[in-house]
Amino acid sequence: MKKTDVRHENALGYVQKMLGYHFKQSKLLQQALTHRSYSALHNERFEFIGDSILNYSVAKMLFEAFPRLTEGELSRMRANLVNQDTLSQIAAELKVGDALLLGTGELKSGGFRRPSTLADAMEALFAAVSFDADFNTAEAVVRRLYAERIRHINPLNSGKDAKTLLQEALQARHMPLPKYRIVDQIGDVHNQQFIVQCDLGETGFQTEAAGHSRREAEQQTAKTALVWLEKNFPSAKNRKK
Amino acid sequence: MKKTDVRHENALGYVQKMLGYHFKQSKLLQQALTHRSYSALHNERFEFIGDSILNYSVAKMLFEAFPRLTEGELSRMRANLVNQDTLSQIAAELKVGDALLLGTGELKSGGFRRPSTLADAMEALFAAVSFDADFNTAEAVVRRLYAERIRHINPLNSGKDAKTLLQEALQARHMPLPKYRIVDQIGDVHNQQFIVQCDLGETGFQTEAAGHSRREAEQQTAKTALVWLEKNFPSAKNRKK
Repeated sequence: MKKTDVRHENALGYVQKMLGYHFKQSKLLQQALTHRSYSALHNERFEFIGDSILNYSVAKMLFEAFPRLTEGELSRMRANLVNQDTLSQIAAELKVGDALLLGTGELKSGGFRRPSTLADAMEALFAAVSFDADFNTAEAVVRRLYAERIRHINPLNSGKDAKTLLQEALQARHMPLPKYRIVDQIGDVHNQQFIVQCDLGETGFQTEAAGHSRREAEQQTAKTALVWLEKNFPSAKNRKK
Repeated sequence: MKKTDVRHENALGYVQKMLGYHFKQSKLLQQALTHRSYSALHNERFEFIGDSILNYSVAKMLFEAFPRLTEGELSRMRANLVNQDTLSQIAAELKVGDALLLGTGELKSGGFRRPSTLADAMEALFAAVSFDADFNTAEAVVRRLYAERIRHINPLNSGKDAKTLLQEALQARHMPLPKYRIVDQIGDVHNQQFIVQCDLGETGFQTEAAGHSRREAEQQTAKTALVWLEKNFPSAKNRKK
């Protein structure tokens, strides 16, 4: 075996260990991890099925965990849990990037770190599990991967992201909305980072954060701004304490 | 039993017969058919789950039926099969309207015929089956209801709707795009109909159609226009014959 083959085999083993599922048909695992740039037998059709397995499984977990929330609140929560950001984070935990099969161009341009590629492969993996075993096994895999994330959701936020919460917190205080701007893009093409600034205008507060996407960096600055805002302009709820 | 109770019981029986599933817990069936205007225990949370059961089940059927189509083509096909138009048609076949529990206001304004209300109840029914039995039973119900529809899809259209096909057909002939306009709304509040006109501009062709929604009427005019167009300006494919 060549060194790269050994490395790929190890990566496949790690992905399966983290999924909590070992494939009987390794061809299905392989196709789930194959980008369209590598082979005609790629993962895009798998993605179509995996996306709906993910949507159902997370919907059911939220339905059970939050019996008092409305359909709209559950939908918003789910949107935050099944989006590219969260899926690519999970893929990073499973080191899916190391197991991906990419064409030369994609490989050189850092495709194995691209959030969209990772998220797509993650969905394709759910489909592959359902093909290798059945729907219920795939649902169990999703449940395991999402259990902690759902335990830590604050139902009062109804799954709102930090930017939305910051906007609402500022509006409640009759303060102007934040301005986000990209101040720098660093790193080589294999590992690009966006540096974003969040500016709270007349309050004089500014903060910066880095992320693999503009959105990720913006969310990070919004989290910091929220903490600062609550400390310096406490909400009615916290002032009463 | 009052006359209306007997009628409602009969309607529940018909819905179950058409679903091919008899509920063990009639409360679940009842909640799936309860509009928010009738009771706090309504069907909106069920809808959230039912929507994802429907999406997965139809995705899987298309995936199996069309092994050569791309993810994009499958997605477009599915969109046409799970939209309000199709769901409310299925609901009409099951006479879901007769089994709905609606508040007085909704009842008077013809809620039992409203496509959105019918489509929502249809999704909620899929969820109720999954709660009463399990996911696989709900999937089987969806498969039964959609089997004929999927058998009749023309894969060459890739599930494109008539308006899209008409637009593409006109573009291929370098002809201007159609204009749709609502020319009338008729019927009482219980049974409103939209009359839509489709105008093919300089060709002089115009056609009108009625539908319970603007979209439904537009699609109907587009179908007629497509037939006219193919007859009067045959596509290259048909000219060769």
